[in-house]
Amino acid sequence: MTVTLLPVGGIGEIRPGDDLAEAILAATELVDGDVVVVTQKVVSKAEGRLVAVDPTDPLSHKIHVEAEAVRVLRRRGDLVMTETRHGFICANSGVDLSNVEEGWAALLPVDPDRSARWIRNALVARTGLRLAVIVSDTFGRTWRRGVTDVAIGSAGVAAVVDLRGTRDALGRELAVTEVCVADEIAGAAELVMGKSRGIPVAVVRGIDPAWLRESSVRDEIVRPHQEDLFR
Amino acid sequence: MTVTLLPVGGIGEIRPGDDLAEAILAATELVDGDVVVVTQKVVSKAEGRLVAVDPTDPLSHKIHVEAEAVRVLRRRGDLVMTETRHGFICANSGVDLSNVEEGWAALLPVDPDRSARWIRNALVARTGLRLAVIVSDTFGRTWRRGVTDVAIGSAGVAAVVDLRGTRDALGRELAVTEVCVADEIAGAAELVMGKSRGIPVAVVRGIDPAWLRESSVRDEIVRPHQEDLFR
Repeated sequence: MTVTLLPVGGIGEIRPGDDLAEAILAATELVDGDVVVVTQKVVSKAEGRLVAVDPTDPLSHKIHVEAEAVRVLRRRGDLVMTETRHGFICANSGVDLSNVEEGWAALLPVDPDRSARWIRNALVARTGLRLAVIVSDTFGRTWRRGVTDVAIGSAGVAAVVDLRGTRDALGRELAVTEVCVADEIAGAAELVMGKSRGIPVAVVRGIDPAWLRESSVRDEIVRPHQEDLFR
Repeated sequence: MTVTLLPVGGIGEIRPGDDLAEAILAATELVDGDVVVVTQKVVSKAEGRLVAVDPTDPLSHKIHVEAEAVRVLRRRGDLVMTETRHGFICANSGVDLSNVEEGWAALLPVDPDRSARWIRNALVARTGLRLAVIVSDTFGRTWRRGVTDVAIGSAGVAAVVDLRGTRDALGRELAVTEVCVADEIAGAAELVMGKSRGIPVAVVRGIDPAWLRESSVRDEIVRPHQEDLFR
């Protein structure tokens, strides 16, 4: 099983109301079993999740950071770690100025699983192929430096694969049972996108077909409060 | 730029003293610029980082969990979240029974960056190619369910790529500046390895050649205490 990561160039600037599925299909040829990874920024733009900010004030988007948060976990300097309505714990509630026109900030989609589902349904309707979509965003990590891309929405590919009951190569039942393949796929896609290259979409081709099923980042990945050891 | 993820099958069971570079070269053909991702388990086995445990007592490895820890962050039931000597914060100090023969547990390598360097040096010496090595392990995340593979050691490929000073597709200077490509590469490799398939090595082919440089997970990824907001 070989997996290929293919950047999708030529998507162009996305504006509110644009049809992302159409833009993706115009830019690349998909095959059965492909996972299309779409960065949050273009999804938010297509869905019109943009708010006006003061371009002369580098902190004017912070009011939206607070508005998008259900709780602030930590503050240090300009950094605010929040919990969003979706249950994500991330910097600045996911509100972001990069790759957005001056004077605007992008908010996270209202329901990124639904965004993934919309794009997937449109891709499947137009191609007849079995396809999956992951909406990705860039998050920091508690104890590791540097950011990685993770899944904030998914449709058609498992967010978490449960290996319970399977055995390791020596026949012993596996203790580590739940692998977050959606985050691994989102991070893999980032390797061919790159934040400064302006490539907002990549195709991950050749994943285990057993992972192609209905899914939800919110239900499978977001950790419920009662499981949280570090809040 | 297309990246390919290639599983390396046929490595066979690794025993203390085995030459991992030789086993890898016997099982696959490498090309210039390849990143070879090797799971911690086979590195620990080759380095003899195995301790005897009581196979009749499922908790007998816990004494090694404590011994490998410099600090315990949280306990819940059998789960112990610790900080290891390397500065990693992970479950059970990385001590693990899966894919190890009954009656034994595997500890993390003493210095996983050095392990990566040893394997890389041996691969480069025998092939004359420009190659990189990442030693990967499976860690949980604070606020996201499911585990992903991350880098615990690296040689020859950037752990964190600093985008400071670069601009986004619209010409604005990037706020998110440091991307942990080593973790994204480790997670990508996991997509073709799989914990129950017994494939401990994968090749990541085609990454940005600008990322090929001397590196260290410990220096670049492990977050210093003073930066830590969630200890």
